[in-house]
Amino acid sequence: MSREETAKRREGNEIEFSRIVAFSDGVFSIAITLLVLNLLIPKSEVQGGIGQAIWDERENFISYAISFAVIGRFWLVHHRFFGEVTAFDGRLIGLNMLYLAFIVLIPFSSSILGDFAATAAVVVYAVNLSLVVLIGLWMTADAQRAGLTSADEVTQREGIIRAGYIASVFLLSIPVAFLAPFVAQLMWLALFFDPTDRLVARAKA
Amino acid sequence: MSREETAKRREGNEIEFSRIVAFSDGVFSIAITLLVLNLLIPKSEVQGGIGQAIWDERENFISYAISFAVIGRFWLVHHRFFGEVTAFDGRLIGLNMLYLAFIVLIPFSSSILGDFAATAAVVVYAVNLSLVVLIGLWMTADAQRAGLTSADEVTQREGIIRAGYIASVFLLSIPVAFLAPFVAQLMWLALFFDPTDRLVARAKA
Amino acid sequence: MSREETAKRREGNEIEFSRIVAFSDGVFSIAITLLVLNLLIPKSEVQGGIGQAIWDERENFISYAISFAVIGRFWLVHHRFFGEVTAFDGRLIGLNMLYLAFIVLIPFSSSILGDFAATAAVVVYAVNLSLVVLIGLWMTADAQRAGLTSADEVTQREGIIRAGYIASVFLLSIPVAFLAPFVAQLMWLALFFDPTDRLVARAKA
Amino acid sequence: MSREETAKRREGNEIEFSRIVAFSDGVFSIAITLLVLNLLIPKSEVQGGIGQAIWDERENFISYAISFAVIGRFWLVHHRFFGEVTAFDGRLIGLNMLYLAFIVLIPFSSSILGDFAATAAVVVYAVNLSLVVLIGLWMTADAQRAGLTSADEVTQREGIIRAGYIASVFLLSIPVAFLAPFVAQLMWLALFFDPTDRLVARAKA
Repeated sequence: MSREETAKRREGNEIEFSRIVAFSDGVFSIAITLLVLNLLIPKSEVQGGIGQAIWDERENFISYAISFAVIGRFWLVHHRFFGEVTAFDGRLIGLNMLYLAFIVLIPFSSSILGDFAATAAVVVYAVNLSLVVLIGLWMTADAQRAGLTSADEVTQREGIIRAGYIASVFLLSIPVAFLAPFVAQLMWLALFFDPTDRLVARAKA
Repeated sequence: MSREETAKRREGNEIEFSRIVAFSDGVFSIAITLLVLNLLIPKSEVQGGIGQAIWDERENFISYAISFAVIGRFWLVHHRFFGEVTAFDGRLIGLNMLYLAFIVLIPFSSSILGDFAATAAVVVYAVNLSLVVLIGLWMTADAQRAGLTSADEVTQREGIIRAGYIASVFLLSIPVAFLAPFVAQLMWLALFFDPTDRLVARAKA
Repeated sequence: MSREETAKRREGNEIEFSRIVAFSDGVFSIAITLLVLNLLIPKSEVQGGIGQAIWDERENFISYAISFAVIGRFWLVHHRFFGEVTAFDGRLIGLNMLYLAFIVLIPFSSSILGDFAATAAVVVYAVNLSLVVLIGLWMTADAQRAGLTSADEVTQREGIIRAGYIASVFLLSIPVAFLAPFVAQLMWLALFFDPTDRLVARAKA
Repeated sequence: MSREETAKRREGNEIEFSRIVAFSDGVFSIAITLLVLNLLIPKSEVQGGIGQAIWDERENFISYAISFAVIGRFWLVHHRFFGEVTAFDGRLIGLNMLYLAFIVLIPFSSSILGDFAATAAVVVYAVNLSLVVLIGLWMTADAQRAGLTSADEVTQREGIIRAGYIASVFLLSIPVAFLAPFVAQLMWLALFFDPTDRLVARAKA
């Protein structure tokens, strides 16, 4: 039997389906909230005033802002993908789990990035996030090939444009990180100003 | 097309809509629970008795009580706002994400406040919370202008009264913090005794 | 107008109502999971073998087991109470928030208890948990008086029996803690073997 | 009365039932996300470059990958079991709570495993996970005996095959850990390549 036939339909298995989504949302919301742990300043490490200590942490705040935007954006892409899913099987759940494993790594990569502005830290971060995007594309393409989504061609292209945009930003930043780590980080701010919403809206109009 | 026309209706997209709400609730509940981390006392730092160590932490308990009340209140306002939302688009989700980014900062600001009763700590806290309120107002006003909520004029005014009340408390406390940081913190207790419920009930009667 | 008239009915406000429950469940599940943080052993603090280090932590494992059982039980009581709630207003939400504020304190009290088997630690823990139960009773009684629950008299009595059982265990352990802190902790194991299920089942038969 | 008669039916108690599932999902998703805490490198402990510090942590990354896969798999088994549950009582909720208590311990066992590749650490980990599986089997068998699930014989056998597969992997690894702890850990990778999906698919075809 093909995967489309063996997969469980979303209708009639709403509770099971919504648990997958709820579990994913739980992981996303915890990962995004754990980012704050990287900002906490142990009282014993503050020697000058607290104002000075906060200023010394400015790299961590930048890293917090970037990671929050990035996880939020991934959540949105995930959200849209699962909005179109009509059937699920063990393989989709497995790929989703692999995807989440790299989402949960983001607070780690973000902590490295905030503490060390070195090339290595920027590369770790960009590799982590590129892997998220690539696994996400794999999961999406796999589900579409297996007939598990109701996404029409426009929506599918939309997903690829979105993922492609994010992946490009991170992959392009890796070589830049070897020249100027700070510039590589600035590039990621491009994720805040997403041109794909406009492109997609135009495609639909 | 106007935003009202391009936005997804809540009806027919209930799962997508409830994921936005569930994600937000997840972030709120994790942020409020992480407040307890600021209270934990590492065993190695206790030199006198444990009773003494807890007493020395009294500032952290006050900061815990304030932040719990504050996040709880923000959750309630968020809850009421989304109860009236009838359609959503990328912009609303983006503003909600920005809003949550400052909610997640509260355990950080709260930790600063509990460890350092200095003017700087009180200002950081009050600025954090004022930003939450102002972004919340922006999100609400934006959604109402775009026709994404079913809130009638009374409910809209109610939302503005509530937000205005909270914002006033924090903004007024900033100048006070330069004179007497402790008094500024006492002002925040006003959030426990919310006069807006009574005002709103009277307006409806 | 009476509270029964001004309160929002659960029917017709299902999403709002379920958000209150979801937020509470989020807080419960995070608080219960954060208990594991008290068990983590920093690598730098291990001097003998890891087997020895785990054995030295045995008080923390006992404290973990007790707190897990206790939060789980509170969740169950909360769960049953909200299963009967038919309407909600700001006051119920406020009392629920106050209740949760003491639930979130449990990982703190549990950490104190695991690190210091002294009388003070046992008293802090018992006071924390007694407050949870007493606020829970207040919330329940208040909702019943205001007509916000569908609980019949048997169910109401059931709730009081359950809460009374838990409160008695903790309140009785406080004087015992001054004589023998370890015995006071043993008393709490009585929560695992809850006689109220049997009493309630008999009352219904 | 038998348990089947006194248990609450899932139909008509959907909100109560879904709270049990939501609470469990919350605990699973928090436990899986807390695994990242074991990876965080305190800035003050980094002496060479950050690249070196990450390389020194390689054991922790292996332990992260294993634990993520393991918790994900347990979640899936739990998910399938509760998909078949048609009624619930205090005993099922109690067993589920006991089950979750050992799920929440996994980040602890994982941290021990990542920091200390010794026999003791591997045994602690394997015992923790075997207990999860055995309690899971107990819960499943108990619910089936009491008539609380709609699972037909094929599905029941499927559950036992799955659980048995996981338990075997961990129980077999314990003696191996006394000879070669690293080999014992390699054995756990077998959980990634689950033969039971294929067996089960064949049984159904």
